[in-house]
Amino acid sequence: MLGSVTIVGLGPGSKDLISPEVSKVIEEATDVVGYYKYTNRIAKRKNLKIHSSDNTYEISRAERAIDLALEGKNVVIISSGDPGIFAMSSAFFEFIEKTNKNIDDIEINVLPGISSMLAASSKAGAPLGHDFCVINLSDNLKPWKIIKERIILAIKADFVVVFFNPRSKTRPDTFKKALKIFKKYSSVDKFVLFAKSLYKKNEDLTVVRLSTACHTMANMNTLVIIGSNLSRVIKKNKTFFYTPRSYSLKFSQSKTDSKV
Amino acid sequence: MLGSVTIVGLGPGSKDLISPEVSKVIEEATDVVGYYKYTNRIAKRKNLKIHSSDNTYEISRAERAIDLALEGKNVVIISSGDPGIFAMSSAFFEFIEKTNKNIDDIEINVLPGISSMLAASSKAGAPLGHDFCVINLSDNLKPWKIIKERIILAIKADFVVVFFNPRSKTRPDTFKKALKIFKKYSSVDKFVLFAKSLYKKNEDLTVVRLSTACHTMANMNTLVIIGSNLSRVIKKNKTFFYTPRSYSLKFSQSKTDSKV
Repeated sequence: MLGSVTIVGLGPGSKDLISPEVSKVIEEATDVVGYYKYTNRIAKRKNLKIHSSDNTYEISRAERAIDLALEGKNVVIISSGDPGIFAMSSAFFEFIEKTNKNIDDIEINVLPGISSMLAASSKAGAPLGHDFCVINLSDNLKPWKIIKERIILAIKADFVVVFFNPRSKTRPDTFKKALKIFKKYSSVDKFVLFAKSLYKKNEDLTVVRLSTACHTMANMNTLVIIGSNLSRVIKKNKTFFYTPRSYSLKFSQSKTDSKV
Repeated sequence: MLGSVTIVGLGPGSKDLISPEVSKVIEEATDVVGYYKYTNRIAKRKNLKIHSSDNTYEISRAERAIDLALEGKNVVIISSGDPGIFAMSSAFFEFIEKTNKNIDDIEINVLPGISSMLAASSKAGAPLGHDFCVINLSDNLKPWKIIKERIILAIKADFVVVFFNPRSKTRPDTFKKALKIFKKYSSVDKFVLFAKSLYKKNEDLTVVRLSTACHTMANMNTLVIIGSNLSRVIKKNKTFFYTPRSYSLKFSQSKTDSKV
């Protein structure tokens, strides 16, 4: 065996949500590779080299990690959330499938993390309590036509829908188009959760009705969860957004938009 | 404020995957409520009362937790994985929506955990690297007709599909029916991951082609992930099952079934 590459998830932003397994691997690493916003979360120490790069450099990050491992280093590639959900794992495997480098003696592992969608869901209540789907709204690597078709089918299936990457500077209109599709095809005025800047000072979770949802309510740091026809908002001392497990329960629908 | 109820996820089975946040809340609890298979994972100590119950007693567990909190106790309700994914959170909110008890002064929180689907995905590679959906195959609380319709629409949308609870003693045929639908509607001989008994001695992850997949490959402790048309199996020193991010990559499809 030469070196190793371990792809890990740092969770949604709080130290308390990094698994002990991941903390240990980072403590034992010689090199950490990642997007600079995530490498900023790694404590500097002697004998640890941190390799930061800008967003969208996933493939070159994978190559850098492999090159370091070929030199015998124990490399950790970091993502936020879970590394397998629209993060580094998939890009890493795209790279190693195509590379001509001989990586047979490198140990490769992926370690799970708490995805931002699970953190957002917990903070809001339990919107993912029933069948759901998860769609990356970025059309950088897939045609918009496929995204559009998926959204329509997800609405027909009455899935709860999670949108990652609803908007960015280079894609100001993807979420606008997605909302338009939802408004057109939904038979119920569903609840929409905007979970913004999780675990940051300006964290904000807001639930509104689909009819009042606007694309400007999301930015690059927002995760959006649109409920199914059954999803509900209940008000106790806090407001909770959840999807029941059962089709046989009878509820009266609540009426208002809410701060969670 | 009276007592508190905190609903937490213990992760997929390894101590190293319990978040520090959850460990701390359990250390400070006066009472832990849960399915006995999960309460068995909690270290006994003085001043901690453990309330175990059998499976399917979700609503009575929620009521027990509320009653204890009304007495001023700090109660933790435990789930495995993440509490919001087909676990206790949703049942808890069903209960508090319907109860007549005055719970306004109870502090209620949900803390996320590493879902078994994220752990299975990491161990296999990155099958959830692109748009996916998650379906509970149990028809105890929803009609089979809805499940069937969802599976057909998920195949049409070319989502990666995660099946929770594929089979049980009381539902020996749900996964058999789901596989039949997949074989009928899929245009590609997709890859199917069976992730069995994660983090137990008899843990086993196997990927087969849809055409060779059989319902007996799953049991109550199996999570099933069926790839999209793009999902791939690559063989290096280990075998990895992953879904690329990109539609523009050209790959040759690999041919064989594999132990991961």
